[in-house]
Amino acid sequence: MDKRRELAELVKPLSDDLTSGAAEIALRAISVFQTMIAGCERDNADVVRDLLRQTARALVNAQPAMAPVFHLGNSVLLATRDTKDGGQTIDACNEALARFEKRLCESAALIADQVIKLIPPGELIFAFSFSSTVVSSLLAARATGKFFRVVCTEARPSMEGRKLAGVLAAGGIEVIHTFDSAFGLILPNCRAAFMGCDCVGLPGIVNKVGSWSLAVACRELSVPLYALSGTEKFINDDHFFEFERHERPGHEVWPDPPKGVRVLNHQFEIVPFSLLSGLVTEQGVLQEEDIKVHVSSLEVHESMTLEGSTVG
Amino acid sequence: MDKRRELAELVKPLSDDLTSGAAEIALRAISVFQTMIAGCERDNADVVRDLLRQTARALVNAQPAMAPVFHLGNSVLLATRDTKDGGQTIDACNEALARFEKRLCESAALIADQVIKLIPPGELIFAFSFSSTVVSSLLAARATGKFFRVVCTEARPSMEGRKLAGVLAAGGIEVIHTFDSAFGLILPNCRAAFMGCDCVGLPGIVNKVGSWSLAVACRELSVPLYALSGTEKFINDDHFFEFERHERPGHEVWPDPPKGVRVLNHQFEIVPFSLLSGLVTEQGVLQEEDIKVHVSSLEVHESMTLEGSTVG
Repeated sequence: MDKRRELAELVKPLSDDLTSGAAEIALRAISVFQTMIAGCERDNADVVRDLLRQTARALVNAQPAMAPVFHLGNSVLLATRDTKDGGQTIDACNEALARFEKRLCESAALIADQVIKLIPPGELIFAFSFSSTVVSSLLAARATGKFFRVVCTEARPSMEGRKLAGVLAAGGIEVIHTFDSAFGLILPNCRAAFMGCDCVGLPGIVNKVGSWSLAVACRELSVPLYALSGTEKFINDDHFFEFERHERPGHEVWPDPPKGVRVLNHQFEIVPFSLLSGLVTEQGVLQEEDIKVHVSSLEVHESMTLEGSTVG
Repeated sequence: MDKRRELAELVKPLSDDLTSGAAEIALRAISVFQTMIAGCERDNADVVRDLLRQTARALVNAQPAMAPVFHLGNSVLLATRDTKDGGQTIDACNEALARFEKRLCESAALIADQVIKLIPPGELIFAFSFSSTVVSSLLAARATGKFFRVVCTEARPSMEGRKLAGVLAAGGIEVIHTFDSAFGLILPNCRAAFMGCDCVGLPGIVNKVGSWSLAVACRELSVPLYALSGTEKFINDDHFFEFERHERPGHEVWPDPPKGVRVLNHQFEIVPFSLLSGLVTEQGVLQEEDIKVHVSSLEVHESMTLEGSTVG
């Protein structure tokens, strides 16, 4: 009972966080696993495994669209599937967490190396929503001495575009900021556009609502649009549509709507690959046909199947 | 001096009004003219004419993108050009104002008649920003007993989409509301989209920023998009680009941006005719080739030329 309450308290800030990207949330999910097993009894493998399953499910339910959170839980459960005692289970979990953290960080660095080459020097580029992968790539590009300016928009209703503007400006990048519907005014001056993503599957990439409008506007204006994503965000069809459950309360958009007005607050949408210039991963810039190979080789623990991931 | 101050005070609320459409502002501009000439001395035509010129210029400068405000001033100046004394000038002005008001109201009614036929019964339609022409058309359609639902978005940063939602809901129309970047989620469920406009010229229509993104999204999803506009919004090239001067303060978008972040707040943008299904006017649904005829026959008073319209 106590462990359940502790888990709920640890997971809530991740569920409430509307301004961080998927890679950033996954790093914080690692801490949740670490905290949960820190005080765990080492004498019973099944008790530890049960706790890990509960933790994995709670994290996926907190951010069902964020594939790295799913893969983190999946990695931990696969790594601890055949352990013999509690101590071994805890050790295997810690190793899986460390491997996942290393993978996230290495992905981000390898993606940044490629993004630097995609930024035309001296030009204006567009960045959408908030993605730690986009931020680290742009800051890394700036750190090489390359000069460029970034336009970004608010990303209503959570306004994580302001967070992006602040972080980039603090890193020495000149930032221009406006509201989301101004794509038609600002994109004609941009030479490239970048966004993160929460999840990549065969139907396309899942990202914050607004990404589709951005992608259609970019194609209309011939501005190349790149999504940045480590392969830890790739997911098969069984899990892809989890994000559709993710509707937020309407009052976050309009606190006091008049009678007769229903307020919708969806958080994620799909952008088909046909609207992207490429998906920048740690393995290179991939196209639609490359994704299938990655997705088909994915092993999923039985507790992470759709039925299993529903909180009881 | 006193008249100048009175004029400035009368015009300021129109200049500060970011949530009303062009037709609505033009109706209020009529009152400004009426108030200015009400206390005017009737013994000198030149004094009255000078006052009318100043009023016309101040109104155009308050809302340079709103063509009906331009045409209102232009009508008054043309009507009073050859009057012989102050009394005759005032009478001619009042007649011009009454004609213009009648024209605005008749246009709105005739446009509504056509919009009713464009709304598919029982379906969801989209309406953008706030336009009194769109509102009166949708309320008129509802009043005929036709059932349909309307989706609208916030229209950041002024949020006149909330005003639209409230007015339509109060008129018995079921409204769904969300944020501006969600075009990709809501338009696939819409069977038609409607917007007002501030100004129509050969390069296209001028309307609130976001209209271009809406138009591109509508074309991508094959949702017919109609702009509603009386011909009192038609304008020739000499006056068309006035709206580009109309940048609002950045703090309306972000009150306290961090250092290094420049905030843009443009209010209007052009939507080319190629992105519209049609322009619904009091003379029927017009296409690009029809506009030229209207625009070429426009007579403009010398005080309303670009140089003349600049406040001294």
